[in-house]
Parts: sequence; structure tokens; C-alpha cells
Amino acid sequence: MDRVLAAAVPAHVGERVRLAGWLHHQRQLSRRTFLLLRDRSGIAQVVLEGDAIGQAAILAPESVLEIEGRVVASSQAPAGAEIVEPEISVLVSSEPQPPVELHRPVLKESLPYLLDHAAISLRHPARRAISEVAAASVTGFRGTLDGLGFREIATPKLVGSASESGATVFRLDYFGRPAFLAQSPQLYKQLMVGVLERVYEVGPVFRAEPSDTVRHLAEYVSLDIEMGFIDSYQDIMATTRDILAGMVLAVQEQAAAACRLLALELPEVPAEIPVVDFVAAQQMIEDATGEPIVGEPDLAPAHERWLGNWAQKEHGSTFLFVAGFPMRKRPFYTHPDPARPAFSNSFDLLFRGAEIITGGQRLNRYDDYLAALAAIGQDPSMFAGFLEAYRHGMPPHGGFGMGLERWLWLLTGASNVREVTLFPRDLDRLTP
Amino acid sequence: MDRVLAAAVPAHVGERVRLAGWLHHQRQLSRRTFLLLRDRSGIAQVVLEGDAIGQAAILAPESVLEIEGRVVASSQAPAGAEIVEPEISVLVSSEPQPPVELHRPVLKESLPYLLDHAAISLRHPARRAISEVAAASVTGFRGTLDGLGFREIATPKLVGSASESGATVFRLDYFGRPAFLAQSPQLYKQLMVGVLERVYEVGPVFRAEPSDTVRHLAEYVSLDIEMGFIDSYQDIMATTRDILAGMVLAVQEQAAAACRLLALELPEVPAEIPVVDFVAAQQMIEDATGEPIVGEPDLAPAHERWLGNWAQKEHGSTFLFVAGFPMRKRPFYTHPDPARPAFSNSFDLLFRGAEIITGGQRLNRYDDYLAALAAIGQDPSMFAGFLEAYRHGMPPHGGFGMGLERWLWLLTGASNVREVTLFPRDLDRLTP
Repeated sequence: MDRVLAAAVPAHVGERVRLAGWLHHQRQLSRRTFLLLRDRSGIAQVVLEGDAIGQAAILAPESVLEIEGRVVASSQAPAGAEIVEPEISVLVSSEPQPPVELHRPVLKESLPYLLDHAAISLRHPARRAISEVAAASVTGFRGTLDGLGFREIATPKLVGSASESGATVFRLDYFGRPAFLAQSPQLYKQLMVGVLERVYEVGPVFRAEPSDTVRHLAEYVSLDIEMGFIDSYQDIMATTRDILAGMVLAVQEQAAAACRLLALELPEVPAEIPVVDFVAAQQMIEDATGEPIVGEPDLAPAHERWLGNWAQKEHGSTFLFVAGFPMRKRPFYTHPDPARPAFSNSFDLLFRGAEIITGGQRLNRYDDYLAALAAIGQDPSMFAGFLEAYRHGMPPHGGFGMGLERWLWLLTGASNVREVTLFPRDLDRLTP
Repeated sequence: MDRVLAAAVPAHVGERVRLAGWLHHQRQLSRRTFLLLRDRSGIAQVVLEGDAIGQAAILAPESVLEIEGRVVASSQAPAGAEIVEPEISVLVSSEPQPPVELHRPVLKESLPYLLDHAAISLRHPARRAISEVAAASVTGFRGTLDGLGFREIATPKLVGSASESGATVFRLDYFGRPAFLAQSPQLYKQLMVGVLERVYEVGPVFRAEPSDTVRHLAEYVSLDIEMGFIDSYQDIMATTRDILAGMVLAVQEQAAAACRLLALELPEVPAEIPVVDFVAAQQMIEDATGEPIVGEPDLAPAHERWLGNWAQKEHGSTFLFVAGFPMRKRPFYTHPDPARPAFSNSFDLLFRGAEIITGGQRLNRYDDYLAALAAIGQDPSMFAGFLEAYRHGMPPHGGFGMGLERWLWLLTGASNVREVTLFPRDLDRLTP
């Protein structure tokens, strides 16, 4: 008999079916026990009566079971159907008392404890639902870009020079030479604009981040795009909008059950995401709060939250572009605004009052790179393999990077980015 | 005027269009010059006459141009249409003489030289075509698995314990502690079978491979799957077959132009890939060649080639499963064949006479892991975070790992895996 998944049980009323999965929980009533069997699709309710109650009572939670039984409609059962007259066989037994009580709607254990026991805590339906939302988000990202003529690439994570800043890079010995772990695919994806014009990558990046906050990880999944032949960095912002819309739609369509379980309120992505100029944004915050921030080179998290509230009130949008950041805190490949060179053709995208995307136009002329590297005291010979692209025709281009886990963190409203990461890496954590 | 891509030019006969791209080459005839403009879709032919010939002659190859002109049908032009009466503007100029002559049908330079100058050599149409085939292969891999209920996961590349063997692992300092770069997602994807039953990952893996061969890389893209609730390891082989068929179909459909350019002969994936037992395969080779290999724990490359020829002759198949490898060269998590415990429920898949996939059933009981780790002298406390999964119900499961670059190497018939890798990493190479 072919295995039937839990979610498909209601389609088999009146039939005998075979299920397989984990013993999620047993709820004992006076004359019957409800055995909940969990599989990749959801949870099925199995009704035990008579001797079966005692036989099942000795099974430890998380035992792997096969259950054959008859499907009956039941208005009491969660999905409108349940299994009766079950024959239960133990495929693989479990030790008693798993470290996490998976049947609780909300896990009560501390986050470090849950992360130590990820092998079991990830089995909780809410944690599995986050995995579904993550997979759908990435599928939506890729699908939108494939439709726009972007090509997926894989760039190396072992690199000979650090692209962003030397401060937070992991170093290692590479056959006797120093090497680094890539902090982003930045210089590679730009080089690939010269090859394929439009590229994207979904892959790990590494930051030896000494800060221990609720939103930083030492390794995370970066969603990166880069596109050539842009007319202005507004082209990148428009593409960013379309990608976000594709991600939200994919989550809605492909992870509907997960969204219900997590009670997610999916954001609406406006046809045009509102844009505020960086200096104008600072001025608004200064005017409203009295805090003298105009002239600061960046926005603090509190300022991002203020702008998030403002965008919601003023534009009814959970998304807001802040455009035109000062050059002095942006990386060396950032393209200045020709009309006011102290500011850049770059942007952040805020979602629910926090930055999820940083993007912008890049320098595309060789001489500009030489000047930019000289200005930060970097030896251009370190970047020779990349700079060659700019000596031989690189079109105007730009792109963005987005941390998948930060997106999930804000989308789910989790209090800590570690709650939406399968196996987070931070100052203290390297296993499992 | 909206930009038109080179491949779309034939659809605009009689119209004025605007193109943008790289000056690929100029072919001078007696009274006219053919200017070839390359963009992400292909190459457009532009006809220069009169003064325009001299004006264009000074442009360096790889200059980024915008060209407006009229499209006319032409039986001489490569795609049946060309641009006449062009107005050319230089968007970004190039230095004279790029390091690689991209207009040559086959690049003549040495492989190390081409890799040093990847920023330019990757722009060659044949190299771009390989990128298209790579992207389509991965899309086919994901699409097939999505259709089978697999979920994509991202597991950490910074790990606290080495999963395969300690010999070829990169080590690094992780906030004052030793860490390793993942050689495979093996233990993580198995753990995730306990969470989602069916998972896959496309991501980088790292091998501090001291061997300098045409088929080894220190970093490569691994296509990994793992599936639970299998009846036998034949289930994994059947899924492997379906995935390969999906990959070949995606290449055929999504990279058709690239296949033509590369003159790729795509393999047919038989409805059932032939299977030969490991010992029977050794016996055949020994009988045919006289080389005494029965009893050896593994197949040498020459034996794989022999079997590849045999599968082609005997079964008309470019694919061949070799099943039932001896336990002694397989990793500790390998499931033995209960009927003959010195052999395993594992397989290799050969494609055109070389191994592209290694897979099989894994141990799924805690006690078996304790015994397997004791047998190789490993401390189980090093693996505590993974072993917890097996203490609490892990179904029978298995999967495989496949190197994307090796697949591309065999699919394209390249002489060296570095020719099909954007930025190969090996003993000598860490940049660009």
C-alpha cells in the first residue's frame, strides 16, 4: 500500500491508508486516545480505543511509526478527517523524553537551549514552517530574476583579497598562503556583469562580526543581484521592488499552510515603493525628535524605526527606500551622485523599520577605481584580476545584497534572527 | 527608444532599433565593415559603409557601444537580419588590445593565462555558453526536487567538526577557537531528514585537496539531496535518475542556443539506468583485462572508463550505476548491506566513464552510529549535536552528492574541470 501523507488524509475518507511519520503527541481522554502523527506535510489524528491505548502509551514521543487504518470524516478532527482502527508498527524507536516538548504550541525553553538541541527543536511545526517560508522566499527571488533574464552564478567563497573592509573578515591558511572567506560576492558579481550583464547569486557569506546582537550572524545567506546597462540607480530600485513582490507572492502561494500556522501578516509591496532622500529623512527625524542628526554619515536603528513608522503613516507602506547616502560610509566601489559628489547613487531599503537591503550604482570606469582605491590607501595590484574588467569596457551597473535571515526575521516578527536560522553561527556558537 | 537585444533583432526587420553591448569584432571587407556587437543574448551584425568605417576602426574591442540603426533582412547575416545606417555612440571605452582575443572561435591561450584573465576570457561566447548550461543544470535539479516535495535548505559552511575525513579539511580561527570549512553538508542534511523528510542543497564545499589533477578543485558547488522513509537504496537510485533527466531536459530547453554553440551532444537518460554490482564489475574488468582487481576496495579511473565503455556497448547507456561498494572505503555513516555486511547499500553513478555521483543509504540508528564511530576511533561527543537526531527517531534514509563542475566537465567534454568553473580554486590559484 502506497504511503499517504497526513495532509492528504481528508481526500481518502472511507479508504484504508498507510501513514508514516513521527509520534508527535498522545492526548488521553477518558475512553480514547488521540495519537498525533507528524510527517513532512502536517499532522494526522489517529483514534485509539480499547487495548490499543495501553499499547501506544509506552511509545516515546518522536518514535517513527507506520500506521495503517481507515479514514473517517470527523468534524472534531483538525482537518475534518481522522484514522480509526489503526494498526501501528514501530519503524524506529526513540529514547524517552526528547530534549524539547514538540507538542507545545510555543516552545518554552531558552533560545540557547533550543539551538543546542536543534536536531529536535527544528522539528517543531513552527520552526518547520519558517523553513518553508525561507524556501519559498528564495524560490520567489530566483523565479523573478530568471524571468528578467538574470543568470544564476556561483562565485568562490575562498578569496585572495577582502572586498569590503578588513575588520570583520575570517582568515585561513590556504596551502601555505593567507586566504579570506568572502564577505560578499561583490567584486565577482560586478565582474560577471561584463560577462552576462545580469547575474544573481544565493550563497553563504561570512563576517567575523564581533558584535553579539539579535540581528547579526557570522555566516548568513546573501541574496545578491547585479545588473548592467542601467540608466540610473532608480532602475535597480524598480527591480528590487519587483523581486520583493515576487518573494511575497511565492511565500503566499507556496507556503500558505506555513503562513497560517505562523499567523504571518504578509506585507503588501506597493507598485511603487516610496523613496525618501537621506538628508531629507535626517531633517524630518531631527525636526520631529529634536535629536541633532543632520550631517551624520549613517542612520541608527532608532532612526530606521522612526522612518518605518513614518512610511506606514504617510504612505501606508511597510517598505521605504532611503536614497542618496553620504559617500563617506559607503564602500569604495560606490558611485557618487555627479550632481553632489559627497553623496552617492545608493540606497537602503527599510522593511518594517529595519534595513534589509543595501544597493546602488557602482563605479564602472577604471580611472575611478584607481582614484577610489588610492583614497582609502589600498594597493590596486591587490585587485588586479577585478580591475581588468574595468580596463576593457564595463557598462553602467549596480545591484544589491540582502540577508535572507534578516528578511525572515522581519517577516515573521521573531525577536532574534537566530530563531529563523537553521544553524546560526555567532561569537559563541559553531555547532551543531 | 527601448533597448533591443541582439537575439531579438530579426523580429524587428524594417524598424529602427537601439542596441547596446560590447564591440566584439570588426571584419573589414573591401567596401564595408561588419561590426559585431555582443550582448547577453548573442551577437548582432552591424554594417558600416563610407565614413563610418574609419570612425569605427579606431574603437578598441570590448568598447561598450550604443548603436541605433535600421534592421534589414539579409541572407548573409548570421541570424538572417542585420543593422544598417548605424549611429554609434561610445558608452564606455576600452583600452586597446584586451588580453584575450574574444572573436576567435576557440581561444588559443594557455589555461593558466585564461584563468588569470578571467575578467575578459569569461566573456568569450563559448565560456558564456558554459555558464548558461550550468545555470540550466541547477534549475533542472531544483525544479525536479521541488516537484517531488523536497525542500531547499542552507546549512553552515563554518563547522565545529569535520564530517568526512580529517585529511583534506581547511582549518581556520573562529573567534579564538578552531573551526573547519564544510567538506559536505552530509551530517546536516541527514539531521534535516528528521525535520523535513526530503531536503536538498546547492552550495559550496571545500576540500584542501593536495592533488593537482584535471578533475579536482579545492572549492566546488555540491548538489546534495537526502530523503527519508526509503524502502531501500534503490529508491535513491530511482530519484537520482529522475533528477538527471530533469537536469538534461532543463539544459535542452533553457540553454538551447548554448548547446548549439558548444555542439553539445546531450545524453539520453534511460527510463531505468543500468546497475552493475561492484564485485561483478570488478570480475568483468579482471576477466577482460587480466588485471587482478577483485578484492580492491575501490575502482580506479581506468576501471570507471572500462565500465563506461561496457555500459555503452551492452546497454546503450552513457550512465551506469555501480552498486554495493565495500564498506571499508566508505564513510562511517554508510549503511551496510544486511545480507553481506562487508558491503554497503551505496552506489556510484558513472557518466561517460567517470564518477559524478556518490550516494547510498545511511545508518539511522543511534547504536549503529556509536559502533561506527568507535570502529574509526572517533569520539562520539564530537558529534553530539547530530547524534541527538538518531536518539529520537530517524527513519531509514539516504541521498547523494554531486559536483556541479564535474557534471559540466563530462557534459561538455572539456579537458580540464577548470575550463567549466568560473573562478577555480586549486593548489596554486586563489584569485581572481
